[in-house]
Amino acid sequence: MKIVIIGGVAAGTNAAVRARRNSEEAEIVIYDRDVDVAHAGFATHYAVGGQVDSMDDLVPKKPKWFKEYYNIDVHTSHEVTSIDHERKTVFVKNLTTDEEFEDTYDALVFANGTVFGVPPVFRGREFDNLFQIKNVQRGRKLQNYINETNPKTAVVIGTGYIGLGVSEQLTKAGIKVRTLDFLKYPMAQLDHDMSTYIADILEENDVKFHGNEGVVELTANGKYLEHVITSQGNDYEADLYILATGVRPNTALAESIGVELGETRAIAVNDKMETNLPGVYAVGDVAEAYHAITKEPMYLPLATTATKMGRIAGDVITGGDLRFRGILGTSAVRLFGQTIAATGMTEIAAREKGYDPVVLTTTQPDVLKFMGGKDMLIKAVADPETETLLGVQMIGPEGVERRIDVFATAMTLGAKVSDLFHLDLAFTPPISTPKDPVMYTGMALTNALDNSPLIMPEDLVQMMEEKEEVVIVDVRNEEAYEKEHIEDAINIPLKSLRENMDQLDPEKRTVVYCNSGQTSYNAQRILLNNEFKEVYNLSGGNNNYQIVLKDIQKNRE
Amino acid sequence: MKIVIIGGVAAGTNAAVRARRNSEEAEIVIYDRDVDVAHAGFATHYAVGGQVDSMDDLVPKKPKWFKEYYNIDVHTSHEVTSIDHERKTVFVKNLTTDEEFEDTYDALVFANGTVFGVPPVFRGREFDNLFQIKNVQRGRKLQNYINETNPKTAVVIGTGYIGLGVSEQLTKAGIKVRTLDFLKYPMAQLDHDMSTYIADILEENDVKFHGNEGVVELTANGKYLEHVITSQGNDYEADLYILATGVRPNTALAESIGVELGETRAIAVNDKMETNLPGVYAVGDVAEAYHAITKEPMYLPLATTATKMGRIAGDVITGGDLRFRGILGTSAVRLFGQTIAATGMTEIAAREKGYDPVVLTTTQPDVLKFMGGKDMLIKAVADPETETLLGVQMIGPEGVERRIDVFATAMTLGAKVSDLFHLDLAFTPPISTPKDPVMYTGMALTNALDNSPLIMPEDLVQMMEEKEEVVIVDVRNEEAYEKEHIEDAINIPLKSLRENMDQLDPEKRTVVYCNSGQTSYNAQRILLNNEFKEVYNLSGGNNNYQIVLKDIQKNRE
Repeated sequence: MKIVIIGGVAAGTNAAVRARRNSEEAEIVIYDRDVDVAHAGFATHYAVGGQVDSMDDLVPKKPKWFKEYYNIDVHTSHEVTSIDHERKTVFVKNLTTDEEFEDTYDALVFANGTVFGVPPVFRGREFDNLFQIKNVQRGRKLQNYINETNPKTAVVIGTGYIGLGVSEQLTKAGIKVRTLDFLKYPMAQLDHDMSTYIADILEENDVKFHGNEGVVELTANGKYLEHVITSQGNDYEADLYILATGVRPNTALAESIGVELGETRAIAVNDKMETNLPGVYAVGDVAEAYHAITKEPMYLPLATTATKMGRIAGDVITGGDLRFRGILGTSAVRLFGQTIAATGMTEIAAREKGYDPVVLTTTQPDVLKFMGGKDMLIKAVADPETETLLGVQMIGPEGVERRIDVFATAMTLGAKVSDLFHLDLAFTPPISTPKDPVMYTGMALTNALDNSPLIMPEDLVQMMEEKEEVVIVDVRNEEAYEKEHIEDAINIPLKSLRENMDQLDPEKRTVVYCNSGQTSYNAQRILLNNEFKEVYNLSGGNNNYQIVLKDIQKNRE
Repeated sequence: MKIVIIGGVAAGTNAAVRARRNSEEAEIVIYDRDVDVAHAGFATHYAVGGQVDSMDDLVPKKPKWFKEYYNIDVHTSHEVTSIDHERKTVFVKNLTTDEEFEDTYDALVFANGTVFGVPPVFRGREFDNLFQIKNVQRGRKLQNYINETNPKTAVVIGTGYIGLGVSEQLTKAGIKVRTLDFLKYPMAQLDHDMSTYIADILEENDVKFHGNEGVVELTANGKYLEHVITSQGNDYEADLYILATGVRPNTALAESIGVELGETRAIAVNDKMETNLPGVYAVGDVAEAYHAITKEPMYLPLATTATKMGRIAGDVITGGDLRFRGILGTSAVRLFGQTIAATGMTEIAAREKGYDPVVLTTTQPDVLKFMGGKDMLIKAVADPETETLLGVQMIGPEGVERRIDVFATAMTLGAKVSDLFHLDLAFTPPISTPKDPVMYTGMALTNALDNSPLIMPEDLVQMMEEKEEVVIVDVRNEEAYEKEHIEDAINIPLKSLRENMDQLDPEKRTVVYCNSGQTSYNAQRILLNNEFKEVYNLSGGNNNYQIVLKDIQKNRE
């Protein structure tokens, strides 16, 4: 059994190592056109920003190590240029010597990752001051450029995970950053209300964000990019440009031998990571995953998924029974002291898939307030049919990754929202609260599904605009009400609600709200337990309402 | 419906609030003999140590607040002195005025917590410089005493969660602390190997620990405790003494009306929190819980469980369908920058319950090493029959609470160890690793259950002592081997194992080890895949072996 793996980063090396652990007989060869193997290319910007000591730390393993420890032959700077699958032969070019040779395989694994998704105006053009984030080699070039030219300003094009991470690290390196995205919001894969918070984080840290602005024109002086001109007609100038407009699966080589792609245009694989061609596998960023909840094809190139897929392919090829079970798309980015994380579906995605979700927006402290707890924002999307979570999005300075992981675990294992209250999670004053944010989310969603319905801010806005009959009650104290309240809302503070209930009509549809939705839940219970016919609690309270309202108004401008 | 709740801390207030949210009609009364309601008494030592700004922060809510927001009548400084359950009447004493009165109930809830478990020599004795940690009142006394007398030294008796937390906080307040425990180890509810690490943490932070030392004699000057003399004959002197020898359920009042106790001597309840008497409930630290895995009665007074139980009782009393589902005993303490956490059963407990567990000890970084990741110690106990986790214990500076919560969630939801690899957990370089410690633990246990058996250090020690035939191979490099190795072990570094395999006999039982068990797993795979008959990987490697060996030797002294 001879296994040839094309690509030696997370997916490829995991496939190789797992295969070796299962079998001493297999001959295992990795070809990678990069100069490095098993590199942490996803982290090069942290070396630029100084959070990683040296770019060398991102390449801890050499081909020699793989040979000695795993008897795996790793050939870096070797490109597989073509394949004759009938003869089970790969044609390889040594990029250092230009020597070309053939190699044969019994099993072939595509682990050759991605290519950049480059906006048309940048295609085929290279500039000395334009960089992309991918591997350590490119990271070194960027670092050298910064060290040598000491740029003062940067434009980062694209505000996904990489774009945001790079913006933060360049800012830490003392560079003034402007970010552009052809989509309206940063991290537009999240719901708009969450993206709005991210825009605020950028703003607070002196990073300018321009949405709805793609780059449509360039001016350059030879190899030096001078200006970018956007779809809005704006002209931005900077010393340094980063192109972080995403990636797409590097499928050309696989397609050349008849490997089929899935609907996401990544290589279609089954749960054994097998392609349509016998003996040919695809793993990592070149392969298509599927959503663990909807079971639909999904493309999200992340190291976590690459690691899983690689290990599964290595196991399957050597006779093991590991199978891929899909992903939730759990992802995170750290941005100026805040962690932004998401798992499962957003509200937008859930609605697109035909769900009519119950959506809770709330803020909860990571630890007890008197221990210095800081609020995290939680947006949880649940399916009323199955009473399970469809997805959660979170932002906060501490403890976000902990809760998103518990949510992801609960979702993977099929928990209902009512199960979350029963979790026995770790508590001691310095690390959490006795009623953890995860439990609170489960309780609030259970209540909402049971007898305490939520209303979304956008639905309330629509009701008001369409002059539907609805009584809106602000149950905060007078001071909060005076400072800012929802148009048309009357103020009856919770503590005097029981005695002032006669101001309200139990026959009329009523919406109650406070700042975050927690206090108004009590008001909702009081009214419902006093025979009010239809009472809704405003999801996320006034805080969330004002954000959504601003967004609606902005969209109309 | 009138509900009388005895005790207004976590369990009692949660019962009251849930009952009110379900019903506006119920009359709800809480009696508590304490001056405070809903206090965070569990955190008073953090106010002493300065981590909480003011002791007042621990009592954010007053009776008036409960009345205004929830229409709940909270009577603090009111003791229920006796009960006539036939007449459904409680006799109450106002501790401020000494006035006595009667009140009636339809439902009675015991939420009256714990009493101190006091060693015989301390019983019935009070000293001005001896303190216990329980409520805010006692916290204020301790704080005042420290402020006024400026103690230089303290003896903390008892090293459970409270004893350790207090020792840390007193140290932070500049006091030199000595800790005693009549058990041999600190946190003796954990496995000894974990406790050994805790003893090291104390030592490193200049806190002396004396195990196997109970206090058997006192010398005092009036109300001033001067010396404690221990079962070892040692005489310790300090300016300040803390008694943290645990608590037991405060069952006397309940017993007086015929409420039955369970085998843990806490009040026996069913999953509705009902006692044997109709209309009488017990919740929180006075009530017995049960283990979610073994289903056996369990007593572990924690705020997390109290909160759950209270909410369930409040729901049941007002017609709800919430039911208690048992606990895993998840718990944590923060100690000098390290978090110690546990969920489910220890190895000792598992063996006592008749399991023959597979036990993995490993160290894993919380985030990628190049991002500053620090190792956490993980000890995971799995049941080979069901292939599920029985329990996990962890120690580490960062990320422990996150992983213990994921383990607890997985255990609660019935995950097999092989499911953990498939979790889609959050990754970005500053917050974790692509193969999270939880996933790693699941993978390693799956391997151990499948085809790569582990051996425990104590079993290897026994084998060697009984001169059983076993070949021990240290697969680390020569330098590590020379520095310290297991007696009888030969050294074949992993990278030369394939070429030196002929030094070994495939027919002989072989044990391989490295520092932590991760590298030697590869050695084990190589040998097993080369037809070796019986190869074990040493759980936790040399690091763990040396700790266990030292412990065994110490026990024989």
